[in-house]
Amino acid sequence: MEERYEKYLMEDESLEDLELRGLMLIQKKEGFRFGVDAVLLSHFTNLKNKETVIDLCTGTGIIPHLFAGKTESNKIYGLEIQEKYVDMANRSVLLNGLEDRVKIQKGDLKDKELIKSLGKFSVVTANPPYKKMSTGIVNEKDELLIARHEYLMTLDDLIEASHILLKDQGRLILVHRPERLIDIITSMRKYNIEPKRIRTVSPRYGKAPNIILIEGIKGAKPYLKWEEELHVYGEGTYYSEEIKKIYGDERHG
Amino acid sequence: MEERYEKYLMEDESLEDLELRGLMLIQKKEGFRFGVDAVLLSHFTNLKNKETVIDLCTGTGIIPHLFAGKTESNKIYGLEIQEKYVDMANRSVLLNGLEDRVKIQKGDLKDKELIKSLGKFSVVTANPPYKKMSTGIVNEKDELLIARHEYLMTLDDLIEASHILLKDQGRLILVHRPERLIDIITSMRKYNIEPKRIRTVSPRYGKAPNIILIEGIKGAKPYLKWEEELHVYGEGTYYSEEIKKIYGDERHG
Repeated sequence: MEERYEKYLMEDESLEDLELRGLMLIQKKEGFRFGVDAVLLSHFTNLKNKETVIDLCTGTGIIPHLFAGKTESNKIYGLEIQEKYVDMANRSVLLNGLEDRVKIQKGDLKDKELIKSLGKFSVVTANPPYKKMSTGIVNEKDELLIARHEYLMTLDDLIEASHILLKDQGRLILVHRPERLIDIITSMRKYNIEPKRIRTVSPRYGKAPNIILIEGIKGAKPYLKWEEELHVYGEGTYYSEEIKKIYGDERHG
Repeated sequence: MEERYEKYLMEDESLEDLELRGLMLIQKKEGFRFGVDAVLLSHFTNLKNKETVIDLCTGTGIIPHLFAGKTESNKIYGLEIQEKYVDMANRSVLLNGLEDRVKIQKGDLKDKELIKSLGKFSVVTANPPYKKMSTGIVNEKDELLIARHEYLMTLDDLIEASHILLKDQGRLILVHRPERLIDIITSMRKYNIEPKRIRTVSPRYGKAPNIILIEGIKGAKPYLKWEEELHVYGEGTYYSEEIKKIYGDERHG
């Protein structure tokens, strides 16, 4: 590792080269590490240079970093409840010299006063915990539990906060699990965010989708556009051509 | 055409061989003719012999006929508002000697007294008009307009009637258009029918889905299962292997 990076890193952390305009991301050696979800969310969002954005449940700050690398947006926020991720994400921001464009804020999205104080955004994104607390195994280490389960917030809390944060006609983009689609749609409509665009992601041809990408627009009229399904793998264990292209676009800029 | 069928047919009608236990269906030569939607709905429903079923907006009665050919269910109803389709569907029932098992009822699904008088069913199916009245072109012949547009009923009316018709834990299965999914889900939850199973159907690999199959269960707890996407065409203009299998299963019994 280059010596100039060392001062930003704790002992239990490592540096991931995003292969995107030289950006690097600090992650725990053991802990939540970003994956295909974040890359798909960034690609599906297709953020415009003039848009402002806040990423909820931002964790390591991977999504704000992808936006910073791909666009010229100059107001890219991340909100994260866990202090050590906020600290880690902010060190990634400093390490990359992005402090004028990217801010990682510590806070709870259920704190309405905080949410209102952040102002309005063109776009809200989130790769939230996707398991309900009553389902699945919950014997993981605390921080992973918080990252994967609705322990500190629910989907409904997330969408209510998004409603407050979005400008009229602003976009909310989520990456989630297909089995939660009904809950997502129900909450979006409850908070006047109309689901407008859906894309399912399946591991490979002939397999059921295991990821869903959904865009809602605040105050929009109903009309849903479905995009063609995306397959992560092509032949055998090779990525599909589209995923290779997305990774190239996302990570090489 | 065999002479014994002639007495059942009007001049502007023709007979379609369902290739399913010798069953035949009367259809208008020009008018609404059944298509892949009906076959997919029947396959996705996977009706059990012990289940009773009512098909709303049944039209020519294609779906009750498919159920009669595939299963031993002895209570298969169809409800249709247009007198001439009711008459035509009932002639198909007689022609096939199914009058002990299949009944086509004339009526308006918005007529709550009528709906309540029909009793309770294990399964409700529908291939309803899928266009909102405010969208698309509405200069077709009246009967096609009624078959394709929400002219005489809305999706919400349909799902409210289904709620009345279903036993507790009964199943509602719809074939519809993906762009209406949000409306379907919203209405289902409004009437305590939980969406439990979804399958998208795309014309071919790499194309966006244009048909959606959805099953809701009355009074069930939330958990949605997604099935793998179905592609209608394989190479070129040939049907995919799965569609060939479905047509074989549905039509050859």
